[in-house]
Amino acid sequence: MKDIEIAQQSKMEPIVEVAKRAGLTASEIEQYGDYKAKIKLPLASRPKTKEKLVLVTAINPTPAGEGKSTVTVGLGDALSLLGKKVMLALREPSLGPVMGVKGGATGGGYSQVVPMEDINLHFTGDMHALTTANNTLAALIDNHIYQGNKLNIDSRRVIWKRVLDINDRALRQVIIGLGGPLQGVPRQDGFDITVASELMAVLCLSADLADLKRRIGNIVIGYTVDRQPVTVDQLGVTGAIAALLKDAIKPNLVQTLAHTPAIIHGGPFANIAHGCNSVLATKTALSLADYTLTEAGFGADLGAEKFLDIKTRVLGKTPDTIVIVATARALKMNGGVAKSDLENENVEAVKRGYVNLQRHIQNMQSYNVPVVVAINKFASDTVAELQAIQDLATQDGVAAIVADVWAQGGQGALDLARKVLETTEEVRAFHELYAADDDLEVKIDKIVKKIYHGAGVEYSAKAKRQIQTFKKEGWDKLPVCMAKTQYSFSDDAKSLGAPEGFTVHVRELVPKLGSQFIVALTGNILTMPGLPKVPAADNIEVADDGTISGLF
Amino acid sequence: MKDIEIAQQSKMEPIVEVAKRAGLTASEIEQYGDYKAKIKLPLASRPKTKEKLVLVTAINPTPAGEGKSTVTVGLGDALSLLGKKVMLALREPSLGPVMGVKGGATGGGYSQVVPMEDINLHFTGDMHALTTANNTLAALIDNHIYQGNKLNIDSRRVIWKRVLDINDRALRQVIIGLGGPLQGVPRQDGFDITVASELMAVLCLSADLADLKRRIGNIVIGYTVDRQPVTVDQLGVTGAIAALLKDAIKPNLVQTLAHTPAIIHGGPFANIAHGCNSVLATKTALSLADYTLTEAGFGADLGAEKFLDIKTRVLGKTPDTIVIVATARALKMNGGVAKSDLENENVEAVKRGYVNLQRHIQNMQSYNVPVVVAINKFASDTVAELQAIQDLATQDGVAAIVADVWAQGGQGALDLARKVLETTEEVRAFHELYAADDDLEVKIDKIVKKIYHGAGVEYSAKAKRQIQTFKKEGWDKLPVCMAKTQYSFSDDAKSLGAPEGFTVHVRELVPKLGSQFIVALTGNILTMPGLPKVPAADNIEVADDGTISGLF
Repeated sequence: MKDIEIAQQSKMEPIVEVAKRAGLTASEIEQYGDYKAKIKLPLASRPKTKEKLVLVTAINPTPAGEGKSTVTVGLGDALSLLGKKVMLALREPSLGPVMGVKGGATGGGYSQVVPMEDINLHFTGDMHALTTANNTLAALIDNHIYQGNKLNIDSRRVIWKRVLDINDRALRQVIIGLGGPLQGVPRQDGFDITVASELMAVLCLSADLADLKRRIGNIVIGYTVDRQPVTVDQLGVTGAIAALLKDAIKPNLVQTLAHTPAIIHGGPFANIAHGCNSVLATKTALSLADYTLTEAGFGADLGAEKFLDIKTRVLGKTPDTIVIVATARALKMNGGVAKSDLENENVEAVKRGYVNLQRHIQNMQSYNVPVVVAINKFASDTVAELQAIQDLATQDGVAAIVADVWAQGGQGALDLARKVLETTEEVRAFHELYAADDDLEVKIDKIVKKIYHGAGVEYSAKAKRQIQTFKKEGWDKLPVCMAKTQYSFSDDAKSLGAPEGFTVHVRELVPKLGSQFIVALTGNILTMPGLPKVPAADNIEVADDGTISGLF
Repeated sequence: MKDIEIAQQSKMEPIVEVAKRAGLTASEIEQYGDYKAKIKLPLASRPKTKEKLVLVTAINPTPAGEGKSTVTVGLGDALSLLGKKVMLALREPSLGPVMGVKGGATGGGYSQVVPMEDINLHFTGDMHALTTANNTLAALIDNHIYQGNKLNIDSRRVIWKRVLDINDRALRQVIIGLGGPLQGVPRQDGFDITVASELMAVLCLSADLADLKRRIGNIVIGYTVDRQPVTVDQLGVTGAIAALLKDAIKPNLVQTLAHTPAIIHGGPFANIAHGCNSVLATKTALSLADYTLTEAGFGADLGAEKFLDIKTRVLGKTPDTIVIVATARALKMNGGVAKSDLENENVEAVKRGYVNLQRHIQNMQSYNVPVVVAINKFASDTVAELQAIQDLATQDGVAAIVADVWAQGGQGALDLARKVLETTEEVRAFHELYAADDDLEVKIDKIVKKIYHGAGVEYSAKAKRQIQTFKKEGWDKLPVCMAKTQYSFSDDAKSLGAPEGFTVHVRELVPKLGSQFIVALTGNILTMPGLPKVPAADNIEVADDGTISGLF
């Protein structure tokens, strides 16, 4: 049975009921249809919960799939089954990839969040609000230049791009403002996908609406002819942009198939941005539930590193356990097996590929947080393959527990849940990878050497110049957000396993003063995906009664 | 007091209550927050209402403002005060102009629909769904060309443009697909504002989801290298595009300041498209209320003509009364007074400008529908000016009634309401302006001569060729949607009053096979507005508690 069929055959609880069980009164939510709601903030104060935070991350993604969201949902349902007060805090799917190759990003099988069609399509409109806010700002910038350019903005140095939540390759590089003096000022430009907008990262890192405004006002949209940064505050439109996000900043409440409450809110790219759901979502879950399960994008080298080094500084809370999701299939690919051969048992390849998982385990342990490995079971996995992973992990002092969440939902993750309950009781002091006031190069060096296990960093001439400029501007004390391929520890997407001795090339730095981090671009990171030869859109249908099919 | 302050000081009823009074059960609506809802369709059948339909239209718009929405809201509240079961069916504001010069489009003073901030910003996401559906289709077209172009689409003859709900002059003319073979196929393109998307017109003319799909499938997106039309059905993505609109097609329920139920749904341009709210909204209101008040965009020469010649054919219902809104100020401008002199009494200018109102009265009477003039009172109007309009209208056999709706709400429109109650009881046979199977040129000729009162029509060489092509394709039996300036009866925006003897120039025809009409372009119609030197956005602010200011 397909994911969407399982989802559609499930009986959802009215969201008012889900809210009630989560400890929210009817007046604390705003319904969006019968099965979605926004949570009005700030919430009235309530008794303190256990505030246990579990971060779910993964090995480097492969085309075999690791199922991080599926495990997070299944683990949440398992904790519910064990009678715990639990809440998920997950990222919002981006519509572009849903129409492209992805088809959906709400878990799978019997471990899904619902209503999956709504969450994967327009949901409560947050992405659209971000798209609109982003592009309104872009229009205001071009209008400022057109109407006399009082701020003396260099039209060649506008760094604020337009966005769409669509995989639209043709918009990556465009020329705008053509048609003569009445149609604008021509310049080279490009569109990103909405989740790559700095406004998405800003929304996800804001403590409240006041903080959102402060951050929006600080965004650098480009430079003047004499190379001075220009901010949104200088343009004088901070209020309008923030007004467009006044509802998007409220966390969204939905449920799993097993009716576990789930907050799904915000989903910045994990390469160009920090890849975690909103701080407000995680905080809200922590205040309502004893156990909050959250995830970070891509593998632990990108998503978890940014969660631990960027998000926790704002959140004011570090994880009590980190769950690393791995699959036998993905380890086989890391061990050199081609995608077409994944169905065949290959214990040796699993063992070879384990080095990837091993390094992620060690990395996460270096933060001094308890680590548990969740082996997400696929039908084709053999007992010997699963046992091999468990044995190797045990040698590394970590429990690796098979979770059969796709087929069994929460029932398939009870062992994993019990282990997590145990590890979250450990009292440990969090080890920071770097200090906030480390120099920019020091921060990058620590990430590259301690997390990626590379030999060193090479900066382009441009990046070197930028470091000097950033020091002058006082921006060098911000955390670093690495933009690196998600497929490898290195900046070479083809280098699987646990590569060593490589150099990471930083070609450019981008100041994100709204997000309050500096993006370091390594390699070519696509910020506007394209559609494949046969897009998922070709198979999406809607029946006359509104039932959707063709989402995965 | 500003409109937004009046709106924010009003106490709204929970939308569940408004729905209940409108005859809708809690299970027939989907809440979007506490004060907005979507109506689930189809509704269970219920006792037949009186089904009286009142169309509110206006003289040609001037910078002085005519206040069509304000009068519609005030009239609705007046009918409520008189104990009648009434429902409004209005257009959704477009966000682009709200950020530009308009600042809001939800009535004014004590005749507003609320929550005005939400309705003017993201509302229930319909515009964003349309933007996304439109641009997903655009991305799929460019991807089709990029991935081998099986349909042999001529990249120079793609007529499907991208859209944003933003006034963004710089996107009117762009080059896309730059950057080399991996980034797409370069071509000239442009962005329209979302309300100009054919999908908006399609949504507004669809009888249900099945009809929506049929219409989307029929949309012509461009031509092959050998000049054959290419439809969405041929691209094979009708299902995906319709799926993106499955919620947007449901009418939205809100309320006036006086709690009269109002459906606000759909808002196509009244120049490039037909300028009326959705057929589903009007039908739903007719099925729930005895009196349905609806409006059409711009002046009666554009909006009402299209309502009567395009929308009524799909709606299956013609108006029982047409209310024409005029103001003394706007008539003075039509009588030659400059905007800066409008505050001074000038009865002679009012009388001179009356010719504009007079022609609209005669035009509307030619459909054999009872006509009432509503004089929307402004504080600067003098008794003599208002009396002059009333006297002239009386000479033309029509009641002209002063409505003081901005200051008094429904109380200011009781006389108007009583008159409307009287005229809607008249039994008359609707006179069609043209028959469905009239030739394209005959239809255009009838509109130009009988509605605009021009001398004739001149077709460009291109338009002449197109008429031949359209005949071959069998498209010439569709209704015509004139794209003409809203400021004048003629195609010259500067020609106010009641010009005669002019020729209308049709430069191009555009087949809108989803909307099922042919657009005739006259003059230069901007389909992507620009922002002014000081955009409304500069004054929009949001307080830390989410309260918005700076909308008008």
